[in-house]
Amino acid sequence: MTKTSSSAKGVALLGSTGSIGTSTLAVIEHLQPRFRVTGLSAGRNVARLVEQAERFRPRIVSLETKAQADEFRRRYSGSRLRVVFGPEGAEEVAGLEGNDIVVSAITGIKGLKPTLAAIKAGRRVALANKESMVVGGRLIRDMARRSGAEIIPVDSEHSGVFQCLAGVDPVHVRRVILTASGGPFFRTPLEEIPGKSVEEALVHPRWKMGPKVTIDSATLMNKGLELIEARWLFDLDPSRLDVLIHPQSIVHSLVEMRDGSTLAQLSPPDMRIPIQFSLTYPDRGPSSVPMLDLAKIRTLEFHAVEAARYPLLAVARRAMEEGESRTAALNASNEVAVEAFLARRISLADITRAVSFAVERHAPARLDSLEDILRLDGETRTLTLKFIERGC
Amino acid sequence: MTKTSSSAKGVALLGSTGSIGTSTLAVIEHLQPRFRVTGLSAGRNVARLVEQAERFRPRIVSLETKAQADEFRRRYSGSRLRVVFGPEGAEEVAGLEGNDIVVSAITGIKGLKPTLAAIKAGRRVALANKESMVVGGRLIRDMARRSGAEIIPVDSEHSGVFQCLAGVDPVHVRRVILTASGGPFFRTPLEEIPGKSVEEALVHPRWKMGPKVTIDSATLMNKGLELIEARWLFDLDPSRLDVLIHPQSIVHSLVEMRDGSTLAQLSPPDMRIPIQFSLTYPDRGPSSVPMLDLAKIRTLEFHAVEAARYPLLAVARRAMEEGESRTAALNASNEVAVEAFLARRISLADITRAVSFAVERHAPARLDSLEDILRLDGETRTLTLKFIERGC
Repeated sequence: MTKTSSSAKGVALLGSTGSIGTSTLAVIEHLQPRFRVTGLSAGRNVARLVEQAERFRPRIVSLETKAQADEFRRRYSGSRLRVVFGPEGAEEVAGLEGNDIVVSAITGIKGLKPTLAAIKAGRRVALANKESMVVGGRLIRDMARRSGAEIIPVDSEHSGVFQCLAGVDPVHVRRVILTASGGPFFRTPLEEIPGKSVEEALVHPRWKMGPKVTIDSATLMNKGLELIEARWLFDLDPSRLDVLIHPQSIVHSLVEMRDGSTLAQLSPPDMRIPIQFSLTYPDRGPSSVPMLDLAKIRTLEFHAVEAARYPLLAVARRAMEEGESRTAALNASNEVAVEAFLARRISLADITRAVSFAVERHAPARLDSLEDILRLDGETRTLTLKFIERGC
Repeated sequence: MTKTSSSAKGVALLGSTGSIGTSTLAVIEHLQPRFRVTGLSAGRNVARLVEQAERFRPRIVSLETKAQADEFRRRYSGSRLRVVFGPEGAEEVAGLEGNDIVVSAITGIKGLKPTLAAIKAGRRVALANKESMVVGGRLIRDMARRSGAEIIPVDSEHSGVFQCLAGVDPVHVRRVILTASGGPFFRTPLEEIPGKSVEEALVHPRWKMGPKVTIDSATLMNKGLELIEARWLFDLDPSRLDVLIHPQSIVHSLVEMRDGSTLAQLSPPDMRIPIQFSLTYPDRGPSSVPMLDLAKIRTLEFHAVEAARYPLLAVARRAMEEGESRTAALNASNEVAVEAFLARRISLADITRAVSFAVERHAPARLDSLEDILRLDGETRTLTLKFIERGC
């Protein structure tokens, strides 16, 4: 069991058994006794959640289904723990009294509702769930302004931008550039990419991440979603946002000022660094990962994005420029298409086809509430599934 | 003649006909009508000073000797201009009523006295004269604290550090790293370096600079002096200062935080960028140089400093660690030795010999006043000259 101090900050962790979730717990352990875990919300990985609960002693855990919650109760050795499940369970974890920070690390649209609950409660939200901002950026921004919630990005690129902007007057910013590793197909002959297999697409050259995000970084949709996220996080016009390919993933983002100076944030490609920053900010704790050694890395490369290699990025950019309901449709159709690709039902190239179709054909709508978003999301998923079933 | 507005800030420029001086005037022209030139202090280049005075209409100009001042009067077409000369002349320019900013760009120890005059007057000092900080760092820092003078560095490396530190709590800084291009001999076989000619040493791969600074960047003494300058500018322990070779001169400096994040400042290698920043800070004006295009530059390389290639850097580091009188001796002996090298009286390798000798053999002293500094400086010059005359 980890030690905590009486002044320890309470952290609720949404998506605790995923890649960001486990890294967050590693950071909390490294920084003990500064943080205590108030609640954990997981998906289906009961065994790992049992382990985490035994180690971090939260007051509440949440799982996806009642059956999983029951299984958890049978296997968990500790006592005095509330076990809940479903979307309401995750929301209960997010809204807990005693949360100083809510880490929102559920992948996909599922993360939106509990993220909104945390923001409504006026907590610091360490945001790793980029889909929340992509589909509900304006809603989240406005709600945070009302509740006083502080959103600290966890994505390495956005954490980098956040850090670069700390000493910068926003009126001086000319461009914010997010870097992309280029994914597994950065050097693949163009004509071979459409037929690449799930296994090939899942081999990411730099970052260890979940399957959805790894596929998104093969198509560069990841960067498209991040541009949209950056737009809302930093209140930037889409025209000020750009992407550069940087295969070494050392420079995470750059802020170009109008006077010709650029600030950049660099670190080893390890998510524990931005996660820790999101917890400790404005403080910075000691690092748990080896320091960056540029003389050892030696070379940092930068390339313009080749449009033909990553056609989905242009689809995402256009959606960002054209408005919110398009970005919500973009995200929904991409989730459905990536799932179909991972299930080996469609090809890599079909993802672009399905997403382009859905973004063009969805029924545009105003997104003023969670209900609006979820309706559009649901409709777009149905539309995309039909398109896939018809053979793209 | 340049246009100025009534709210234009008054800029006095010390060292107006040198490399930094002419770039500063180009920046002022680019930013007109925001700045007006109050005074210009030059060395021996009467013709160029006449041109500058006709264009920028200062109220006072200063030259090195009475003969030059007389020549200036004969050639200058304008009226109502005070013409002075000598160290007192430069000081008068620096201390002028109506100066909002004094740009201190005289190379070498000659810049110290007028820099102190500007700091005493409580002005913003845009500091390009690194020798001032190297020989009188503590004195200048303390005097600035008393007078309220604001020192904004002009050196690209220090400007970069200054910009990176803007959003950073100093207690989080683990290391400040200045980059060095490596100079013309970065890839020269080691055994060939000691015999390199003045012409070969003056070909700098990236920056267009005066001869003294160019030789210093061939020996990496430039970086040694900059480390010492950074120590005083940013109040950093010598152990927190480091150098990386970066041949492209795009990343000027890096600030490594204890949590594993590093912030870096990048720009095209053009002095107009840090000069402009020093004038406009905290504002940032539009750039007069093309924006950085990393996709075009493509590769940024970093290398550890090879000790055997740049033996003078270790001499400078040791002097920095051992105390102020040693850094003053370092600077004095280096000025003498570089001058002797440029006059073809000694070899490149002799510079290191002469400086090492002087740093070891000078009589250590407390440096509590300008007089203390100038006495030590003079004694060390004599010592170094004798060493050179004896054939090193």
